[in-house]
Amino acid sequence: MNPDWSARRDLSINQATVPRWSASEVIEGCARAGYAGVGLWRDRVQAEGPGLLAKRARTLGVEVTSLCRGGFFLAPTTEGTKARIEDNLRAVDEAAELGAAVLALVCGPAPGRDLAGARQAVAAAIAELAAYAATAGIALGIEPLHPLYCGDRSVVVTLPQALHMARCAGKGTVGLVLDSYHLWWDPELERNISQAASAVLLVQLADWLAPPPDPLNGRGMLGDGCIDLRAFCRTVRSAGYAGKFEVEIFNPEVWALDPADTLEVVALRYEEHAR
Amino acid sequence: MNPDWSARRDLSINQATVPRWSASEVIEGCARAGYAGVGLWRDRVQAEGPGLLAKRARTLGVEVTSLCRGGFFLAPTTEGTKARIEDNLRAVDEAAELGAAVLALVCGPAPGRDLAGARQAVAAAIAELAAYAATAGIALGIEPLHPLYCGDRSVVVTLPQALHMARCAGKGTVGLVLDSYHLWWDPELERNISQAASAVLLVQLADWLAPPPDPLNGRGMLGDGCIDLRAFCRTVRSAGYAGKFEVEIFNPEVWALDPADTLEVVALRYEEHAR
Repeated sequence: MNPDWSARRDLSINQATVPRWSASEVIEGCARAGYAGVGLWRDRVQAEGPGLLAKRARTLGVEVTSLCRGGFFLAPTTEGTKARIEDNLRAVDEAAELGAAVLALVCGPAPGRDLAGARQAVAAAIAELAAYAATAGIALGIEPLHPLYCGDRSVVVTLPQALHMARCAGKGTVGLVLDSYHLWWDPELERNISQAASAVLLVQLADWLAPPPDPLNGRGMLGDGCIDLRAFCRTVRSAGYAGKFEVEIFNPEVWALDPADTLEVVALRYEEHAR
Repeated sequence: MNPDWSARRDLSINQATVPRWSASEVIEGCARAGYAGVGLWRDRVQAEGPGLLAKRARTLGVEVTSLCRGGFFLAPTTEGTKARIEDNLRAVDEAAELGAAVLALVCGPAPGRDLAGARQAVAAAIAELAAYAATAGIALGIEPLHPLYCGDRSVVVTLPQALHMARCAGKGTVGLVLDSYHLWWDPELERNISQAASAVLLVQLADWLAPPPDPLNGRGMLGDGCIDLRAFCRTVRSAGYAGKFEVEIFNPEVWALDPADTLEVVALRYEEHAR
């Protein structure tokens, strides 16, 4: 075990990296490993109750850096879309009870081929949700996903696009979640991050494996891929980001590890490749 | 068979869509099916000889819309990179002998994690190649690939980035190859195409399947995916593109068809979804 735990004060672990743990186990595991925060998922939070988890996190001094996730606003029917927006209101309630710093939004695919129309509809849905979130005191984080996901998970796929949406939706309440995995390819990344600086609510880390072994669950452990994570972290820090780095790795090989070991590996890799 | 063959005068088939055919078979198949052009691959062209194929294409009135491909400039060693640039000079020679309208460039991955450095090195390699290509009278087409390929196939992943590189490398000699599959996700696509208008040498078509069944060989037959191909074709036409649409689909299900049937399906789908 690494005797210097100071790096771990920069880190949060997203539950998707250690799915074998329940939400309370993630909180406890992070406290034991010296991590500053956790990112939790709605289904796992619902299973134990957001109030109980909020208390556990407070007691152990672990910050809930995100609740994952809201979004997926658009359904093929108007009723379907209405139900999804209703579900997003419940996500805001859960984030508030949990004391999560950010509700991360994955801005769903287009129901048909009208990508521009879907983008407008997503912007409208976020504006509606923002009003409710403001009342609940919850920050919404639009997460631009890798363009790989444009067809099935998110019509928001670039940082400038997400920033524009956040600014239109409501200053202060709506910001951004930036993930190295989703953004590293951008030839204008440094400039785009610097322009988004004040809107960045959370930064997530994962590496890009080349070629990607799986579109959904092929994200890489820090240092296993081709992203210059140190430059990425330096860029967001230089832009003024003072929050945690939440590590979110969807990968069966990572999931096969003992979750406590995963936390050790992530901390070591963060020091070696990103800090 | 569709009695109205006029749409086929818009079309070229890329050999990667019908790999069971040799280069001369693709030329002959296209002539029979009323297609205006073919895009050929270097290994298949070398197997039969570019001179012979040029003659066959001329005789049958089939345009060679592209030779695929140059690029992949950067190797881990200086000698390796030098050998690759040498190989690109041979690709220019082959394109000239073949009478290809464009040599398509896939601008390779970074040998390490220095993406910005790799992009500069690629730009330098293209500038070097451009001088040689100008003498041979061959146009080089920088093809921005989908950001999905940033780690293993191309450091050039956006249209504005490719356009900037083309303009720096040499006006007139270096332009762009645009493919719907690589670009459809771009929130600024219409504006970016309109700004690139005069530099567009070739437009390729394939659909995006969601979720992608395979990163490399998961491209969709026109109409099977989520791209609004009609809007894409309209946009490039409005920007002034008067060339052919070269259909390039890497997909084992397409490859399983009789190549002559593939040409029929592509023509019908083009009419139904793109024209």
